[in-house]
Amino acid sequence: MSYPAKPLSALTVRVATAEDFASIWPIFRAVVSRGDTYVYAPETDEVEAERLWMQLPLRTYVAELGGAIVGTYYLKPNQLGLGDHVANAGYMVADAARGQGVASAMCLHSLDTARALGFKAMQFNFVVSSNHGAIRLWERHGFAVVGRVPGVFRHPALGLIPALVMHRFL
Amino acid sequence: MSYPAKPLSALTVRVATAEDFASIWPIFRAVVSRGDTYVYAPETDEVEAERLWMQLPLRTYVAELGGAIVGTYYLKPNQLGLGDHVANAGYMVADAARGQGVASAMCLHSLDTARALGFKAMQFNFVVSSNHGAIRLWERHGFAVVGRVPGVFRHPALGLIPALVMHRFL
Repeated sequence: MSYPAKPLSALTVRVATAEDFASIWPIFRAVVSRGDTYVYAPETDEVEAERLWMQLPLRTYVAELGGAIVGTYYLKPNQLGLGDHVANAGYMVADAARGQGVASAMCLHSLDTARALGFKAMQFNFVVSSNHGAIRLWERHGFAVVGRVPGVFRHPALGLIPALVMHRFL
Repeated sequence: MSYPAKPLSALTVRVATAEDFASIWPIFRAVVSRGDTYVYAPETDEVEAERLWMQLPLRTYVAELGGAIVGTYYLKPNQLGLGDHVANAGYMVADAARGQGVASAMCLHSLDTARALGFKAMQFNFVVSSNHGAIRLWERHGFAVVGRVPGVFRHPALGLIPALVMHRFL
């Protein structure tokens, strides 16, 4: 992932409304249908996407640039019960906005939000091992690889490949 | 965990019926209320326990010894979509039946069942690091530690301690 020459001063991250899903769905569909970064079934439909991204999480956010929604993330407890002090998040960026630092800005925003909500750490359970850009980005934001599960992801081109568990304290 | 002097020839493992939950619930409550091995909230009530153990999983089994239900396990895909070739399971043994190989027998049964259902691997996401007996048992049954997440479990006596990710191919 490259960074913009000047910082994304015009990027705002805010809580998503129900109406925002109309803009989130094309981003979700594009990312998930490729089947190379998220474990969600590539054919996931709009109803299921809305459930996964808007209903199940604790919070959902969008990133806006010049009035357009260019990214989205969710935040939730990674476990309930005796593990609910650890947050989990997922991030998606519109194809047209890639390489501009949107994911990085959303990651920083999610870390601040999780900290403000009282979470003590953030954990990603399923970072596809071929997603080198994401792995480097999370490492730059303080995450460490704490697990590597062999053959756990069915990549459309690479077959069964590992996924990483990544973690950082807040 | 010790093993019985003679094998558990009288132990049978079978699919749980809805009626079996009356016998499963006391086992679940005893294990979960201690708060030292499962991430479920220690105060989890009967309705939620039934949902977690009977409804959400793909299959639930019970282990019977001398006509009494002495253990139970669930089996489900660990992820949906592009990770649904990996199974997940959880096991509980009645206090009175501990140390007799019930967990071991259920683990073997679950591995056979998962294989028969077409799963390619089994993964445990949250093996509490202080649960040495369980860790040794899973290792004896071919599981390897593939991840260790720091501070992710709130143990009632030990505070924030790691949980292990364990995995084996089938």
